[in-house]
Amino acid sequence: MTVSYTLEVADARFGGFSKLLFRWRGSIYKLLYKEFLVFCLLYSFFSVFYRFLLSEKQQSLFEDFAIYCDQFTTFIPMSFVLGFYVTLAFNRWWGQYTSFPLPDNLMMVVSANVHGVDEKGRLLRRTLMRYANLASVLILRSISTRVRRRFPTLEHVVEAGFMTPLEQTKLEGLKSDFNKYWMPLTWFTNLAALARQEGRIRDDIALRLLMDELNNYRGKCSLLFHYDWISIPLVYTQVVTVAVYSFFGFCLIGRQFLNPEKGYKGHQLDLYVPIFTLLQFFFYAGWLKVGELIINPFGEDDDDFETNQLIDRNIQVSMLAVDDMHQNLPPTEKDKFWV
Amino acid sequence: MTVSYTLEVADARFGGFSKLLFRWRGSIYKLLYKEFLVFCLLYSFFSVFYRFLLSEKQQSLFEDFAIYCDQFTTFIPMSFVLGFYVTLAFNRWWGQYTSFPLPDNLMMVVSANVHGVDEKGRLLRRTLMRYANLASVLILRSISTRVRRRFPTLEHVVEAGFMTPLEQTKLEGLKSDFNKYWMPLTWFTNLAALARQEGRIRDDIALRLLMDELNNYRGKCSLLFHYDWISIPLVYTQVVTVAVYSFFGFCLIGRQFLNPEKGYKGHQLDLYVPIFTLLQFFFYAGWLKVGELIINPFGEDDDDFETNQLIDRNIQVSMLAVDDMHQNLPPTEKDKFWV
Amino acid sequence: MTVSYTLEVADARFGGFSKLLFRWRGSIYKLLYKEFLVFCLLYSFFSVFYRFLLSEKQQSLFEDFAIYCDQFTTFIPMSFVLGFYVTLAFNRWWGQYTSFPLPDNLMMVVSANVHGVDEKGRLLRRTLMRYANLASVLILRSISTRVRRRFPTLEHVVEAGFMTPLEQTKLEGLKSDFNKYWMPLTWFTNLAALARQEGRIRDDIALRLLMDELNNYRGKCSLLFHYDWISIPLVYTQVVTVAVYSFFGFCLIGRQFLNPEKGYKGHQLDLYVPIFTLLQFFFYAGWLKVGELIINPFGEDDDDFETNQLIDRNIQVSMLAVDDMHQNLPPTEKDKFWV
Amino acid sequence: MTVSYTLEVADARFGGFSKLLFRWRGSIYKLLYKEFLVFCLLYSFFSVFYRFLLSEKQQSLFEDFAIYCDQFTTFIPMSFVLGFYVTLAFNRWWGQYTSFPLPDNLMMVVSANVHGVDEKGRLLRRTLMRYANLASVLILRSISTRVRRRFPTLEHVVEAGFMTPLEQTKLEGLKSDFNKYWMPLTWFTNLAALARQEGRIRDDIALRLLMDELNNYRGKCSLLFHYDWISIPLVYTQVVTVAVYSFFGFCLIGRQFLNPEKGYKGHQLDLYVPIFTLLQFFFYAGWLKVGELIINPFGEDDDDFETNQLIDRNIQVSMLAVDDMHQNLPPTEKDKFWV
Amino acid sequence: MTVSYTLEVADARFGGFSKLLFRWRGSIYKLLYKEFLVFCLLYSFFSVFYRFLLSEKQQSLFEDFAIYCDQFTTFIPMSFVLGFYVTLAFNRWWGQYTSFPLPDNLMMVVSANVHGVDEKGRLLRRTLMRYANLASVLILRSISTRVRRRFPTLEHVVEAGFMTPLEQTKLEGLKSDFNKYWMPLTWFTNLAALARQEGRIRDDIALRLLMDELNNYRGKCSLLFHYDWISIPLVYTQVVTVAVYSFFGFCLIGRQFLNPEKGYKGHQLDLYVPIFTLLQFFFYAGWLKVGELIINPFGEDDDDFETNQLIDRNIQVSMLAVDDMHQNLPPTEKDKFWV
Repeated sequence: MTVSYTLEVADARFGGFSKLLFRWRGSIYKLLYKEFLVFCLLYSFFSVFYRFLLSEKQQSLFEDFAIYCDQFTTFIPMSFVLGFYVTLAFNRWWGQYTSFPLPDNLMMVVSANVHGVDEKGRLLRRTLMRYANLASVLILRSISTRVRRRFPTLEHVVEAGFMTPLEQTKLEGLKSDFNKYWMPLTWFTNLAALARQEGRIRDDIALRLLMDELNNYRGKCSLLFHYDWISIPLVYTQVVTVAVYSFFGFCLIGRQFLNPEKGYKGHQLDLYVPIFTLLQFFFYAGWLKVGELIINPFGEDDDDFETNQLIDRNIQVSMLAVDDMHQNLPPTEKDKFWV
Repeated sequence: MTVSYTLEVADARFGGFSKLLFRWRGSIYKLLYKEFLVFCLLYSFFSVFYRFLLSEKQQSLFEDFAIYCDQFTTFIPMSFVLGFYVTLAFNRWWGQYTSFPLPDNLMMVVSANVHGVDEKGRLLRRTLMRYANLASVLILRSISTRVRRRFPTLEHVVEAGFMTPLEQTKLEGLKSDFNKYWMPLTWFTNLAALARQEGRIRDDIALRLLMDELNNYRGKCSLLFHYDWISIPLVYTQVVTVAVYSFFGFCLIGRQFLNPEKGYKGHQLDLYVPIFTLLQFFFYAGWLKVGELIINPFGEDDDDFETNQLIDRNIQVSMLAVDDMHQNLPPTEKDKFWV
Repeated sequence: MTVSYTLEVADARFGGFSKLLFRWRGSIYKLLYKEFLVFCLLYSFFSVFYRFLLSEKQQSLFEDFAIYCDQFTTFIPMSFVLGFYVTLAFNRWWGQYTSFPLPDNLMMVVSANVHGVDEKGRLLRRTLMRYANLASVLILRSISTRVRRRFPTLEHVVEAGFMTPLEQTKLEGLKSDFNKYWMPLTWFTNLAALARQEGRIRDDIALRLLMDELNNYRGKCSLLFHYDWISIPLVYTQVVTVAVYSFFGFCLIGRQFLNPEKGYKGHQLDLYVPIFTLLQFFFYAGWLKVGELIINPFGEDDDDFETNQLIDRNIQVSMLAVDDMHQNLPPTEKDKFWV
Repeated sequence: MTVSYTLEVADARFGGFSKLLFRWRGSIYKLLYKEFLVFCLLYSFFSVFYRFLLSEKQQSLFEDFAIYCDQFTTFIPMSFVLGFYVTLAFNRWWGQYTSFPLPDNLMMVVSANVHGVDEKGRLLRRTLMRYANLASVLILRSISTRVRRRFPTLEHVVEAGFMTPLEQTKLEGLKSDFNKYWMPLTWFTNLAALARQEGRIRDDIALRLLMDELNNYRGKCSLLFHYDWISIPLVYTQVVTVAVYSFFGFCLIGRQFLNPEKGYKGHQLDLYVPIFTLLQFFFYAGWLKVGELIINPFGEDDDDFETNQLIDRNIQVSMLAVDDMHQNLPPTEKDKFWV
Repeated sequence: MTVSYTLEVADARFGGFSKLLFRWRGSIYKLLYKEFLVFCLLYSFFSVFYRFLLSEKQQSLFEDFAIYCDQFTTFIPMSFVLGFYVTLAFNRWWGQYTSFPLPDNLMMVVSANVHGVDEKGRLLRRTLMRYANLASVLILRSISTRVRRRFPTLEHVVEAGFMTPLEQTKLEGLKSDFNKYWMPLTWFTNLAALARQEGRIRDDIALRLLMDELNNYRGKCSLLFHYDWISIPLVYTQVVTVAVYSFFGFCLIGRQFLNPEKGYKGHQLDLYVPIFTLLQFFFYAGWLKVGELIINPFGEDDDDFETNQLIDRNIQVSMLAVDDMHQNLPPTEKDKFWV
């Protein structure tokens, strides 16, 4: 489930963001603790290895190598790479969210412009909205692991009521090697054209309005599909990942506490626990985790979009708007400010 | 209240921004002074502790540790992290502001295209605008702590005149687990369709215009809702916060003035007050505060949006435009430049 | 006046931008020379103070303190802060410019779609355009110090011919606590609706076109108003300003030339004039000045927008387009390429 | 083929991006291994040269030169340059992708608004869509090396069925020195106007809708063409390339392991294999490769757009939508939620 | 002429961008070689001066000063400034390019909606498109040095066939102190309105379509004009230029090879040619050159937009589309996929 927390920090009070640090759900701790443990373990291993298992001469060699490794941390400006990379990922993430197809505009237009309170009229309005919702389900099945698990086959979509069996037959009868999400939308336009001929839609302008809103809706479905298809180039992700991983790989050795007695520069103190390196790990690996989290917001992380809930919401409000609320208005009264 | 100050710095004169430094309302001092005091206190505590409470040997240990801690400040490039993070937050902040639903376009269109100076006509225009304003109130109640406090229940909304009791009943009668802000807008479209049938709206093009403007309006309500729902991933905020907090945590020890007589490098001077560290605190913690301030502009900070005032403004100008000003034109005269 | 210089650097020739360095109007020298002088004076004061007024022991203390101060320059990464801040300000600056309401689209549409070469027709077209221009004047009065000075009261607006006295009465008769710039635009829509009824506008589509263009126009007025109302959070500006000011505050002492004979590191040379510090001042303070300059482009800096000229241009071309040029076409002839 | 991998990292689990490191297709290894080998070879050459072929005095000179070269790595902030450059390239890359002309909106509109199930009607709809697809093929031939190879001449386009021989004659008969991709689109508008006259398109609004969608479509073709024509200025690319290449050129000498016995600073260890330099090479050269990869996404890299497949998809779904699916609707039934 | 090179680097092959390094046209070498030579000359002068013309004591002073100067290179983070500045300039550059008014949409709409194959009809369509092209020529004359040189006076515009002498008289008869590019567009709208009255444009919707496309076209002309008028604030450009110039000014002295025998730190080697400084010059001055190049893309650099060619292309395709291709369709045949 998406983790909303802005209400908690609505005011910039004393302490501010500090209250956000003590949360588990959707937190960096939950995401990172395993990596953190592995890093600690490996560090301890090398520490023990250096302190107890090496001969004096070997220790000397290890020390030279550790000092050499420590230089590496200055070679790759990780904050830069991560800053650029995460900003890119963040923009795509938000772009994906705002591309989520919501039927709200469409349903209002259908509610007001497809007339008839008889059964035929209701059926018409409901079917139109069902087609729109069906298209979004089809597209989300191919993108979101959550939705795919909910609707592993088209039968599940039928069962959930987004499609009738006859429609399924029709859909499967049309041969196309590509995603068929646009087909229900083509039905929509054709059904709307029919409704115009039968006078259910009273004028050409209203039909056009429906077409426009449908095209907007389809555009969003399509954009979502393309966001999924065309990822950030794999090469970029690999370069960033290798940078972070190799950084901490060399930290395992380069950040060991060397024998203070040998007087190596910057090694006056032996704390056993490399607090700063751990914090740095927390920080850089955490930043990379942010990238991992938002590179695909249609997974099942705590912070990923609640696609299934949105699907339910969409069909529910669609039906509400075009059926229950069609020409079902509260009586107009004079308001309080009436003079 | 929003703090406008650009008029004061309209011209880039001598001193420039300096005059902005001596303000309290909406200032960084007001936001930060508590944290600042806490930091000073803790620093003093460690200072006293080191100077008077430790034995000589313990002091030596403390000094080693302090020197070690001081290295940490170079480990995390805070300016980078804060720069990227605050830029992200800033873009969202402005995005939220420009998504604030203003009824201006809608009211002009209603004023010019819904005809009839009789009571029925007035009622129609006023009701349409009331629906639009009601939707924005409903959405803002779920986002803004200020608005929520003003309208804790729907009864308060009724009382304030945005809704009639009958409308409230209707609204509550419609079952939906999700935010119902869109319902008054569906009433709007249906009422407009009715007005078209009765000839109050004279042509289909005008009806379409109303629908278009309404959809724009709804789109903004919806965007606002989603900005609230989908925050910057918590993980990102945590990473940044931990970086800043741990930085200053280690500064408490690492930036202590060590005994100058011991000749530690960079410790020739004992000033008691760590001016630079305080300025750095002011700077980095201040930058983080900027992030806290703008991450939710619908709170009650000095610099947050004045949602309640905007709500009042919107209903007032709506009624003015569609009622008082409907076909109430100044006489057209020849202008001064007439030849 | 806006300073256009791109024509001078249209070609990337030898020397390139160097020719831009020798200008006074709109230049960084003009903006910065006062601060620069003050900085030099203060620096000289401390220099004299250190060299001639202090006892030897005091000089030693001063030297320690100077060396301490010099460290500060590495503590705050000013280029970063300024880079992020100025980029934000720049985007807003350009956003404000592109939000400037230009009547060009509107006037063309009015010219072609509001018919009648008789006096009534002319009056209608001129009045419509006058309303549009009036709205922009009203909004600019509340934003731009230049326009405010030109039109301190509504009477001045009447006098300048943007409003008739009757319109002023009407405008003032409508009670609203907020900016009333939208009122003339409501008149516009109502007058257009009237013109449609009288057949001056021949069809609904043309009316709609007028409404659309008017809404665009109003949207820009509104955006301008909001850019002015919602500034970059004061806190951000303060943080940046404090950083720059404190930086140069400490430079006054930290960058003094210490006695070369005492052999302080990096103090082998006594040049009396701290060239680099002055260049750094020029650079960083100059960068901040860029921010000051563009944070409010409606002031009276050399580089601010020429709002008054634009107002004059707008009313002039409006009248030209809808009156002189209405159905006043050059005869259509075969062009040169006719085959 | 585009390399999609986001599904694999849908969840931010333990290990996260690590699973992306072991891939060959579309990977950084595949792109970089040749340069990497060359770099290793050259490095080895200098290493052997220094160790075995130089006299002692020459070695000393080499060592001085190597130390000098090593300084260079700090002179050019490559991460910065690459960060800015790749971000620019990335934005263009995504801009190009979203400019890819997809016929989906157009085909739905044609399907619903160009009437007639007779042969004439089918022919009309199919021809319209063929024109649209033809335009995109013509534009892609001039941009994408893959498409150019598939359609080296117009005859190939005819053969593939996008154009009839008569159309080819017509197209070639029109003289224009510039890309003619817009011609089929002009046919489209003229044919649509004809269809309106014959009543196949029933009203002006529908015709307008077609024109609007066509203009959108054309706009994307045009944008694609201009993205190709106006590249990132060559100068910028050269500056970045020279920076990276010279950096590693100097690394060949500056990062040699010098004789540890001579006690040069930072040269206590002789590892023979310069691990860090290799990682740095991997990192920076990899980042530059990202730039090379995305600067022209219409090539034949693993990660480039699959233009040929998209062309096939587009014509297939176009025909499906306007022919098979025209007024071929599943029967409307009551849905599952019907009450 | 614009330098297109992306086709050469369509694939990220071995060597990649290296092939871009050996080009002269539009290259950084061509842009920079003069500055480079001047820098070398000045450097040599100081080198000779130091080595041969100074007494030993003067040399010592020079050496102290050189070491002092060398520090400066760390004082100004040039990569940062240049990165931010060039990114700003780049965005404007691309914004200007995409604002270039292309008549393609307009001509298609005119071709399909302004009817009549008789001479009157042809004349009408051609005149409309000529007006549109004329407007863009007028605007480009005031922006682009190339276009200005081609059309130094309005007579040249008449001669080139964009305007008839009668139109010129009319245009000059209208008094306006500002750019008159919008006047032909007002003629366009008025002529279109006339054509509607005469029935050449058959319905109001088509007229509206023309108006909409014209407004888009005008919007682009206007944006181009404003990009030219409102440059990046001169102050910003000056700050950046001063930073780069002073940097290399101090390099002339600070990067001299000092006598290795004197054992100054980092001066063990005397290479005579300061390779790194030259590369740095190449890099930073090159980056600044990128800024110079793109700050005004309407000049006559190799990489500037080919405005004159575009003007020719636009008028040519305009005439082709509205005259030769008007209702001149290839016969519709069954396509290859017909079943």
